[in-house]
Amino acid sequence: MNFCNQCGSAVSHRVPTGDNRPRYICDDCDHIHYQNPRIIAGCLPFHGSQVLLCKRAIEPRKGWWTLPAGFLENGETTAQGALRETREEANANAEIIEIYTMFSLPHISQVYMFFRAQLLDLNFSAGEESLEVALFEEHEVPWDALAFPVITQTLKHYFEDRKNNEFPIRSADILYKKPD
Amino acid sequence: MNFCNQCGSAVSHRVPTGDNRPRYICDDCDHIHYQNPRIIAGCLPFHGSQVLLCKRAIEPRKGWWTLPAGFLENGETTAQGALRETREEANANAEIIEIYTMFSLPHISQVYMFFRAQLLDLNFSAGEESLEVALFEEHEVPWDALAFPVITQTLKHYFEDRKNNEFPIRSADILYKKPD
Repeated sequence: MNFCNQCGSAVSHRVPTGDNRPRYICDDCDHIHYQNPRIIAGCLPFHGSQVLLCKRAIEPRKGWWTLPAGFLENGETTAQGALRETREEANANAEIIEIYTMFSLPHISQVYMFFRAQLLDLNFSAGEESLEVALFEEHEVPWDALAFPVITQTLKHYFEDRKNNEFPIRSADILYKKPD
Repeated sequence: MNFCNQCGSAVSHRVPTGDNRPRYICDDCDHIHYQNPRIIAGCLPFHGSQVLLCKRAIEPRKGWWTLPAGFLENGETTAQGALRETREEANANAEIIEIYTMFSLPHISQVYMFFRAQLLDLNFSAGEESLEVALFEEHEVPWDALAFPVITQTLKHYFEDRKNNEFPIRSADILYKKPD
């Protein structure tokens, strides 16, 4: 960030009075530009014993399998965002059951949340950001071709929890360790 | 938003190519300025049968009682943010048990999350943003002087769930209806 989005003047990176961490502050109008983590909301859509996955048509991880998810937009609830992404990426109609997994990824300032969601019909298809959309039984899941650790962890929890048909929230931090 | 924070030129509010909603876009360098909901992370700190509340020293709702909570910062996990706010507002040392409530407030593009947290000692005191910090038994909670609906709902769920000592995640949307 170089310029104030309110008045167009240059910004400095310094600790505001009464604060305890540096922010971008306008040298002219004193506006403080806070930057905060973003939420990625998604669904774990299921139909009977099958789960729906999307093969990514975009980077990062183009060609790898994922659950439908994306950045929550202003004005949305987390569940609305998760369902919107499911429609956009998989043209799928689903109904939210409950939030299921939540992950903090502090190295990229992101918080992921996935909702269990029942497919309402089987009229799904690849959206613009997907190459392919398909249903998988547990033994068919392409475990070695999943796009992100949050996807792998959500699916592992799900198949494990499904044995007891109890789905408590599963939350975890995914911490990036710099290589030695 | 009037100016690009990258190059300082004027921005327009229009739908980018391939997108489906208006964004602030720089007319000069084409940078797209996404705006997304923010997370407020907090704790429900408890000690035996008592819960810790803070009387707000700042607006909004100055003088009303709240749970310690605030905007999640870049580089933090949600639990770290909740504990930091608990230290800052109540000088309290606590240990996270598990996430407990989550609320979407789409009219202000905020997502609240509260963690149950065990107080590690009773050396708490009012931080800069609090007038007073105290422990309350259920019958002592100032229900008519709680600062926000998310606080009331979190406390109501807690005292109800405590009867069974089971604390499943409680999630809800708090929708603002415009007056007729």
